[in-house]
Amino acid sequence: MKADGQEVESRVQRHGGNRYGREILLDFSVNTNPLGMPDDIRAALKSALETPSFWEWYPDPDCGRLRQSLSVYHDIAREQIVCGNGASELIFVIVRSVLSEKREEKGARSGLRCLLPVPSFGEYERALLAAGAEIVYDRLKECAHFAPTEELADRITEETALLFLCSPGNPTGALIRPALLWKILERCERTGTYVLLDTCFLELAGEGGGREAFLAAPAAEGGTCTYRQILETYPHLILLKAFTKLYAMPGLRLGYCLCGTAGAAERIREQLSCWNVSATAQYAGLTALDSEKNADYIGQSVRMIREQRKLLENGLADLGIKALPGQANFICFYSNKSLYQPLLEKGILIRDCGSFRGMGEGWYRVAVKKQEENEKLLREMGIILKR
Amino acid sequence: MKADGQEVESRVQRHGGNRYGREILLDFSVNTNPLGMPDDIRAALKSALETPSFWEWYPDPDCGRLRQSLSVYHDIAREQIVCGNGASELIFVIVRSVLSEKREEKGARSGLRCLLPVPSFGEYERALLAAGAEIVYDRLKECAHFAPTEELADRITEETALLFLCSPGNPTGALIRPALLWKILERCERTGTYVLLDTCFLELAGEGGGREAFLAAPAAEGGTCTYRQILETYPHLILLKAFTKLYAMPGLRLGYCLCGTAGAAERIREQLSCWNVSATAQYAGLTALDSEKNADYIGQSVRMIREQRKLLENGLADLGIKALPGQANFICFYSNKSLYQPLLEKGILIRDCGSFRGMGEGWYRVAVKKQEENEKLLREMGIILKR
Repeated sequence: MKADGQEVESRVQRHGGNRYGREILLDFSVNTNPLGMPDDIRAALKSALETPSFWEWYPDPDCGRLRQSLSVYHDIAREQIVCGNGASELIFVIVRSVLSEKREEKGARSGLRCLLPVPSFGEYERALLAAGAEIVYDRLKECAHFAPTEELADRITEETALLFLCSPGNPTGALIRPALLWKILERCERTGTYVLLDTCFLELAGEGGGREAFLAAPAAEGGTCTYRQILETYPHLILLKAFTKLYAMPGLRLGYCLCGTAGAAERIREQLSCWNVSATAQYAGLTALDSEKNADYIGQSVRMIREQRKLLENGLADLGIKALPGQANFICFYSNKSLYQPLLEKGILIRDCGSFRGMGEGWYRVAVKKQEENEKLLREMGIILKR
Repeated sequence: MKADGQEVESRVQRHGGNRYGREILLDFSVNTNPLGMPDDIRAALKSALETPSFWEWYPDPDCGRLRQSLSVYHDIAREQIVCGNGASELIFVIVRSVLSEKREEKGARSGLRCLLPVPSFGEYERALLAAGAEIVYDRLKECAHFAPTEELADRITEETALLFLCSPGNPTGALIRPALLWKILERCERTGTYVLLDTCFLELAGEGGGREAFLAAPAAEGGTCTYRQILETYPHLILLKAFTKLYAMPGLRLGYCLCGTAGAAERIREQLSCWNVSATAQYAGLTALDSEKNADYIGQSVRMIREQRKLLENGLADLGIKALPGQANFICFYSNKSLYQPLLEKGILIRDCGSFRGMGEGWYRVAVKKQEENEKLLREMGIILKR
């Protein structure tokens, strides 16, 4: 514990989403699109298996066609886009890239720090520890629903090399308020702080598809803000995105980031090994972006998630459980009766948030799934809570 | 240029093996198994496409079953095995892991160095530069066929954190002499230097399959040495291996390393992002190891490579070209007449070794491929050289 109450620690968090070696019938611990992988991606991969070049060539090390498609989709220059072996890989290399640039700029012993609001996705902390970063934890408050507040902006100094943000937050599921996000980004431009804004769940929350990054954004006319606008205004911003969640293809590993500058993207690429994105993943990504059914599939997913999220929220309320407000494809809630083990005994895996730093026992996260699955979860929870 | 003639530089090498955006009929720049991906791997992947869990679950972050199979195959404890998104990813994380351990042990400013014999695979240098390592280049001599000599052992000091070795060497194709390898490993144990020994092409050169690491090895009875023996004797050794080349599946990305200690493996894993090996790659690897046809396929590959290598060597000699001695599935040679561009105009891609640090213009590397392909190469080279 440091004098100012901020911690510099080295405890590593455990992950959710590992169902191997267990008897799982329903996995609510993984937050992928409840509609499942689109059929046309599966069909494309199947036909690709007939083509030896697909497996027997090295993958394109530049992800040229995929980055071109992403460039058109988001209206961002291809040079500002980096593809990764899942968003997880990019988290690790972005941390290294930022620290390496800042150490060159300020000297190796200049007391650089990385600001990490918690609770948040455990890979942020693992990546920081792996890179030997000094971590300043910003403990988000339960009374503020574990969402960032104005206080976070005040903690950003010229010593802050990197700030992690996540919208919708993981595990909370809440979007960062636009006014606060803008305030934080403004401050980071003044201090030269890079912001890694993880938006892996943004499309599933009904925002961020195509060119439009954030709805209700104060910086632009009409209340929306494009990716181009936000990255031009805030060149220290790095937006993290993934195919994993949106297209329910976590087994394939494909993520990417949109960087404020081509220079930042180039420095990230320097930290990546060659051929880091498999031919399979590149092809699946291209199919997802080029398919005419793409927009339909996303629209349908968002509608389903809204409807089913409401069903889960109401069901939880009926059980006397209050969930955190949010709009992601997962819900975070507190129960004073233990749920993880009793549900596991029924073959249902949920995320016990006790391992999220700064959250504590009794918090859980469940994915929004299909209606019959959600109803099954609520039914089993009802039985456990009434025991 | 430093006073002792060793260089500390930062030039980055270009890669071979990128055929995207070109009209290529025959790719001799890529050194994968000329027999192509085994049919049973393709069949297994095809049937897996019918199973949603294969794509829609996160891959096993521990690669549990794959590491178990590798453990049995090589007779090495599972805890000493780390799987990666291709051997390339492991090169990057092993460098970071070793430097991080050594910096903790010796202090951040203790003048740690990494010893890199050149010419060698360009990713070694890229990984060292990305990690901010101080590189000491050991220039291998043309008169020694660019192979390591006793001089290399003399350069290893207590300041040497990491030494790169490659057997068979890339681009030379030659195995390191066992007596020299043992001398170097002995020295590294005394200085506490980690050795990253890249053996990605070893099986295709007819050694290193299953439990037996090196034939003609002086340390063991009967002239052979098992993986278990060599790793127990030299705990600072890290052996890098790949499915990519042996099973001709570079598009899928799968490599692994065998570490001298479980501790070294654990530190490498700390540098890896979660879910780094795709479900596709894990499944392909498992299929390759578990298939009964596996040993047949490798034996057949080795016999074909020996035969075709001889054909290429003889053909090159007939053209007045002397190749470096070696036994890998690729051949390195010198020609005073330029070959790269004229062959490319015929749709044949070879590796121009001019971009290998320490090699210079006129050196080329070609893969050993199928007989008709090798004959086509020799024919086209003949036409060019007679012009």
